[in-house]
Amino acid sequence: MIQNLLAALLLFGLLSCGGTDRETHPSEQPGMCAKEEMAADGIVRLSKIEVWPQFLDEYMKYAMEVGEISLRTEPGVLTMYAVAEKENPCKITILETYASKEAYDKHIASAHFRKYKQGTLHMVKSLELTDQTPLNPANRINNFME
Amino acid sequence: MIQNLLAALLLFGLLSCGGTDRETHPSEQPGMCAKEEMAADGIVRLSKIEVWPQFLDEYMKYAMEVGEISLRTEPGVLTMYAVAEKENPCKITILETYASKEAYDKHIASAHFRKYKQGTLHMVKSLELTDQTPLNPANRINNFME
Repeated sequence: MIQNLLAALLLFGLLSCGGTDRETHPSEQPGMCAKEEMAADGIVRLSKIEVWPQFLDEYMKYAMEVGEISLRTEPGVLTMYAVAEKENPCKITILETYASKEAYDKHIASAHFRKYKQGTLHMVKSLELTDQTPLNPANRINNFME
Repeated sequence: MIQNLLAALLLFGLLSCGGTDRETHPSEQPGMCAKEEMAADGIVRLSKIEVWPQFLDEYMKYAMEVGEISLRTEPGVLTMYAVAEKENPCKITILETYASKEAYDKHIASAHFRKYKQGTLHMVKSLELTDQTPLNPANRINNFME
């Protein structure tokens, strides 16, 4: 009985000592924060952005900066993987995964996201956000900065 | 019977996937073969597939099977991550990464890919393959089956 109580107390301590009420997993990559588990209201999204050609180089700097900071420092940003079409580098697709709606709200309220958003508004010709469902929940991605 | 065949295929793949002269890295995930390093002629691709609605359930089975076998057993298949639009599940996007052109050729010559391709030809309304360049080479993905 006392052993069970002790175990429960220990478990409670372990779960609560990260300062977040959501479970996190330590990353094996240096410079990467621990990541939250995907919650029921997690988001998997493909963001399709077309950039005006004259702004492409400048846009890339903003996009790389916000991608790196988000992935390194936000526990709820599980993937932020951006690719550009080989034939037309102005057409960018980003695989974005947020552990929860709360994690997404935190992301778009962050200083680094707002800097990106406000700094690139005039560079973006079109933006399409399409929420997705993974075909196979057992197919997992660990996305990190090297 | 089909389960046994799948298991045999998986086992064959697991046992045989060390037999390459390209550098491989052992996976930390059980049931995942070691993966090759990305070569200069590696391929990052977004495949966009629209499936005829009446075949969607059947298509999903084929897609999940080929995805799992490819990712588990092919050293040169680095990502095979499929998502479907929430608003229209017939619209599927797959993030496919091959370590080299050779790895891609091996993939499309494999029994599991040919089974998928031939089995689903009549289910596919449209198919668009678009090669991509990652924005940031330091942004890495480890894709695996859990």
